[in-house]
Amino acid sequence: MSLPAALAAEAPRAQAMLDRLATIGADSPGITRHAFDERENAAHDLAIAQANRLGLEVMRDAATNLYLTWPGEDRAAPRIMLGSHFDSVRHGGNFDGAAGVVAALAAVSALHATGFAPRADITIAAFRCEEAVWFGLGLIGSRAALGILPQEALDRRRADTGRTLAEHIAACGGDPGAIRPGARLLPPGPIRCFLEAHIEQAPSLIEAGVPLAICTGIPGNIRHAAIRIAGEDAHVGLPRRFRRDAALAGADILTALDAMWAEEEAAGRAMAFTIGRFHTDTAKHEITVVPGDFTFSIDLRAYDADHLAALERRFHAILDATAARRGVSIDRGARNAAPVGPCDAGLQAALAAAAARMGVATRPLGSPASHDAANFAAAGTPTGLLLIRNANGSHNPREAMETADLMAAAATFAAFLRDAG
Amino acid sequence: MSLPAALAAEAPRAQAMLDRLATIGADSPGITRHAFDERENAAHDLAIAQANRLGLEVMRDAATNLYLTWPGEDRAAPRIMLGSHFDSVRHGGNFDGAAGVVAALAAVSALHATGFAPRADITIAAFRCEEAVWFGLGLIGSRAALGILPQEALDRRRADTGRTLAEHIAACGGDPGAIRPGARLLPPGPIRCFLEAHIEQAPSLIEAGVPLAICTGIPGNIRHAAIRIAGEDAHVGLPRRFRRDAALAGADILTALDAMWAEEEAAGRAMAFTIGRFHTDTAKHEITVVPGDFTFSIDLRAYDADHLAALERRFHAILDATAARRGVSIDRGARNAAPVGPCDAGLQAALAAAAARMGVATRPLGSPASHDAANFAAAGTPTGLLLIRNANGSHNPREAMETADLMAAAATFAAFLRDAG
Repeated sequence: MSLPAALAAEAPRAQAMLDRLATIGADSPGITRHAFDERENAAHDLAIAQANRLGLEVMRDAATNLYLTWPGEDRAAPRIMLGSHFDSVRHGGNFDGAAGVVAALAAVSALHATGFAPRADITIAAFRCEEAVWFGLGLIGSRAALGILPQEALDRRRADTGRTLAEHIAACGGDPGAIRPGARLLPPGPIRCFLEAHIEQAPSLIEAGVPLAICTGIPGNIRHAAIRIAGEDAHVGLPRRFRRDAALAGADILTALDAMWAEEEAAGRAMAFTIGRFHTDTAKHEITVVPGDFTFSIDLRAYDADHLAALERRFHAILDATAARRGVSIDRGARNAAPVGPCDAGLQAALAAAAARMGVATRPLGSPASHDAANFAAAGTPTGLLLIRNANGSHNPREAMETADLMAAAATFAAFLRDAG
Repeated sequence: MSLPAALAAEAPRAQAMLDRLATIGADSPGITRHAFDERENAAHDLAIAQANRLGLEVMRDAATNLYLTWPGEDRAAPRIMLGSHFDSVRHGGNFDGAAGVVAALAAVSALHATGFAPRADITIAAFRCEEAVWFGLGLIGSRAALGILPQEALDRRRADTGRTLAEHIAACGGDPGAIRPGARLLPPGPIRCFLEAHIEQAPSLIEAGVPLAICTGIPGNIRHAAIRIAGEDAHVGLPRRFRRDAALAGADILTALDAMWAEEEAAGRAMAFTIGRFHTDTAKHEITVVPGDFTFSIDLRAYDADHLAALERRFHAILDATAARRGVSIDRGARNAAPVGPCDAGLQAALAAAAARMGVATRPLGSPASHDAANFAAAGTPTGLLLIRNANGSHNPREAMETADLMAAAATFAAFLRDAG
């Protein structure tokens, strides 16, 4: 069977798996597939059923991540790994995460139907608990697999059950004691590259009318969870020139950052910032009191380490200028950072070429969000990421990916794997 | 005794009364004189002791406001009323409110010492519960006295005791059943004018080096306690052009209002706005979620009804423009308004002239804050307000009024009363 014919035959199977996943996750409105729980386990079982049909090797690591391996002719050759995750946020959509595993399975299944025999192992991974909502930390499964999960994470409690991550891992049959910084849990041997497909979380591809993007990079970020602005609480009667209004200083900072983003965007320099928490002290603020306290968070991201560092300097310059102008002081609190996750240039070219060979239109696109792939990129594994066209964003019940677009990703993976020589 | 000599002799008495008030209110840091409680009652007792010394008539109304009347030769002639309040905020200063009663007593006492006999009654009022902190509503005593207290206010509970306003009034010996809209509780007969002295709540007079201001007007205001901006919660990965960031819309509104104020100030048009509450939804906001909900309050004030109406139109235009630009909708919630309290032009001139006769330098100044006097002005009584120089604002333990400046207000009142014909 030709690869295009095999892919066409694969589409109904992919659709059926997505339909089953929607049933497993049903939690009106939308989908909830809890991490480390029976729903995530049921999704794993669906993938294992496919693996058994194809004769893949099934392995679980100590963190209960799932690996389905199509053995290559040379078992010692560096393997190609593809993967994503099955867990969702609460009342999210059916496709964030799951689409990546389904696309990888469809690619392997279609190749299998053509009679292809891989030279090296091809492993499909389903990582646990990618979503940060469950334990207040994201990418848990892939961090654990790469030996970079912070030790304290095992004591974090799941937001809904109150049970620790270690307890949840053990309940799923894992071995939390084997999860340690530096302890790599992945299938043994070198990894040639890591590939992930993920729905786009913005409507760029809808807008462009293109089914698939080749990701050009996964941004690094710097984060401050709580920056405190201290001005002075004052009577509503205090004239403007005497005020030290902390909320007004906050507004100045937010509008200045937005202007910076607009300027960077106009110059073609991709970045993003999000101020998710932005608030007066709700325990004491009053309609007639000029607020003397204000708190905000920031997530600032960019695709190039030097660019991110430059943006961070501009951010601090905005804080300093605002503090001087508004007569406030600013306590920046704790800073966290995640490194830039570069997408391998050779893989980008190879994926674009593979898509083109299958008649799939693509365009380059930065991933504004982080994904399991970012951990592999940061660990030095050559990494490629496909973004699948999707309406209405993600993390909400209105995610809307067409199965035809998922199959465009599967076709790209299949052509890449076939020709990866 | 000459009036200047009598005033000079009065200063130590005023100082002693302020010192006693500080002892009564002591609540480190600063002063707390609860409304409708033993501390406010003790302040009343100090005033009654002065009244007894001077032979004034002592009366309480059903709301337990206190009236001390120096009978005039013509008891039917319209009385002159002077007054303010004794209650403070929690951990406030010694002078917000109390200074006005002490200044009025000092003026009357000094005139008494000169052998002066008033033509019409002169009444010193101490109104209960001017501060909004106790029952979530300010100016309660003067509203009740004028018959304009909302009926629901009697069921409001004091923030600390949890007892209702009606219970507190009854416990102080009042008759809550007699407090009704339209039922005026003031001493009988017409009121020629109402005069109040109050510490300035900003450092304008400190800056100007002038002890006293003749207030040109008490602002009206419009208030919205909770304006809700609805955008869309979105993933941190959503590009800028797709975002509907409710907090950013809030920041735009606040900075636009500040620019409007700066422009009005430069044009010499007095106004103020305060956004005391300004916040994302603290129950759900997250560092990596573009906030789809934002709430803020506004107090917008000006001294002229037409000016205030024009500012309100500009405020709504800012909201509309921001909603369009940021793709959000804005629910303005409930609107409350307080009318402009004009200070009588003839009284302004007479008070300035009286001050000048006593060698007291004054300047005209708008009162950015509301006071008991505003209720009299809004009720149509010709109203005058003196603002006394005071460092460090009010509603905090660092209020700092010099007794010499309080005596400048007393001298102005005394000269006005002597020559009021």
